[in-house]
Amino acid sequence: MDRSEQAMTPLDPDYAARVRTSFGRQQAMTLLGAEMTEVEPGMTEIVLPFREELTQQHGYVHAGIITAIVDSACGYAALSLMPPGVGVLIIEFKVNLLNPAAGGRFVAWGQVVKPGRTIVVCTGRVVAERADGTQQTVALMQATMMVVRDRAAVSD
Amino acid sequence: MDRSEQAMTPLDPDYAARVRTSFGRQQAMTLLGAEMTEVEPGMTEIVLPFREELTQQHGYVHAGIITAIVDSACGYAALSLMPPGVGVLIIEFKVNLLNPAAGGRFVAWGQVVKPGRTIVVCTGRVVAERADGTQQTVALMQATMMVVRDRAAVSD
Amino acid sequence: MDRSEQAMTPLDPDYAARVRTSFGRQQAMTLLGAEMTEVEPGMTEIVLPFREELTQQHGYVHAGIITAIVDSACGYAALSLMPPGVGVLIIEFKVNLLNPAAGGRFVAWGQVVKPGRTIVVCTGRVVAERADGTQQTVALMQATMMVVRDRAAVSD
Amino acid sequence: MDRSEQAMTPLDPDYAARVRTSFGRQQAMTLLGAEMTEVEPGMTEIVLPFREELTQQHGYVHAGIITAIVDSACGYAALSLMPPGVGVLIIEFKVNLLNPAAGGRFVAWGQVVKPGRTIVVCTGRVVAERADGTQQTVALMQATMMVVRDRAAVSD
Repeated sequence: MDRSEQAMTPLDPDYAARVRTSFGRQQAMTLLGAEMTEVEPGMTEIVLPFREELTQQHGYVHAGIITAIVDSACGYAALSLMPPGVGVLIIEFKVNLLNPAAGGRFVAWGQVVKPGRTIVVCTGRVVAERADGTQQTVALMQATMMVVRDRAAVSD
Repeated sequence: MDRSEQAMTPLDPDYAARVRTSFGRQQAMTLLGAEMTEVEPGMTEIVLPFREELTQQHGYVHAGIITAIVDSACGYAALSLMPPGVGVLIIEFKVNLLNPAAGGRFVAWGQVVKPGRTIVVCTGRVVAERADGTQQTVALMQATMMVVRDRAAVSD
Repeated sequence: MDRSEQAMTPLDPDYAARVRTSFGRQQAMTLLGAEMTEVEPGMTEIVLPFREELTQQHGYVHAGIITAIVDSACGYAALSLMPPGVGVLIIEFKVNLLNPAAGGRFVAWGQVVKPGRTIVVCTGRVVAERADGTQQTVALMQATMMVVRDRAAVSD
Repeated sequence: MDRSEQAMTPLDPDYAARVRTSFGRQQAMTLLGAEMTEVEPGMTEIVLPFREELTQQHGYVHAGIITAIVDSACGYAALSLMPPGVGVLIIEFKVNLLNPAAGGRFVAWGQVVKPGRTIVVCTGRVVAERADGTQQTVALMQATMMVVRDRAAVSD
């Protein structure tokens, strides 16, 4: 998207380790069985294997669970660009559910599109991998984060 | 809200049982530990007790988990107004996270504000109950459902 | 809403005059023919009479025009609570269009639901007044503002 | 985005003329001074030159006006894929305002990302062209349309 418009330069040389360590503290991701598979400046990828425990009444993965992984992907995409000691808080997001979340594995990407001083805007996407090797987008997110300075509880 | 503008009349006399049965099939709600505590025409309430397994890196309940319960509350608010054999699919939602999801218990409400023929719009809210008995709104949702007729996989 | 949860106390005794003066500088509102009809702490009301120049291809008022008045109503609801010299910037909103914008007059309300230190969240609503005296909600907004300190260009 | 996932095949050979004719009936676009500059299957482009009459209180183009052009761009992106006699209605959208709408000219694009049978999802973007020839994204939209069959008032 607007990746070229603004530098996606990490201000913390250890951004990848910091993001992965923080992700490791998200107990909700452990409960769901999600793993962080990629971290780049302004982008992260999270993978969630299908499990029956994650489904809604029709047998698809619950929209809230799909939202949880792409929310984390977007939040950590933003965090990857923060200087040491500066955190981010998600303040809102919107999700369109494009197709039923059916498949063996779900891959979520978060991407910073506007790395502002106070507000960071991200887009996210979740793809379902089907048994036959095809992929289908199941969710599209547009999310807003707030940069948080000088608040110990929110520094990652 | 606009509750007065349009009749919130259940078209299925067994709407409450139908909603509760369908909720019981949402394995994701069982995994999270959520319970449906109230069903009225056009409104449902879901309660989620705090557990460490639900948290993100700062110790608050993960935004995606909070979203999951209010998404279910909105979806079932819509379903409560459907005639027998007619289902609903959530097509999109937007959530504002107003305060950190800290507390002993979280109560989510979904409320139909526009019960259309094809599209149903709901608003949702999640309140955190603190140890001292106070309450604070942690999330506000605006969501859109599609009414689904003649699709066996989506009738509840 | 959550009006009771947090005090809606104006920090500028001249909040109403300040809001009305700033609204008077919105040339877009003049172009559309919109008027600010009410200002209270945390709430404003804007009225737009129907004109053919505002319509889309089916003869209803264009969704963007409806959005413009409820966006202004929400922005000024937030501004009404700011201390002197502090401004607000809208960073995002979501709008559901519930019914066709047909009618002789449209009334938009913006209401602060979370007056935070950095982020202010508002909900908005637009009602169409029909010729027969009935009213119908045509749009529902959920919007996020950022509080802006020490930026001369954004103080109202 | 997902353009490759699903065919963006126009089902009406005269889609471009039909879209342009319908756009010509949007009196709101004439009032604003917007022009449709491109129509492709699943994509349209609309250009709006800066005018003082379009501004909010800080001298930037009003967020509602920016929303109006990208809303039209998304709606017509969806219409370009509809068979003859079938219309679309916008049911909701979310807009992030990334930068102040300052510039000599604003270019809005709407792009279908999911051309469903009942629901069409689009993303939109508005770029400001500055006097020095640079460009900056000012708004990002994620929007949902409903396909409308057999309703004379909504066929374009």
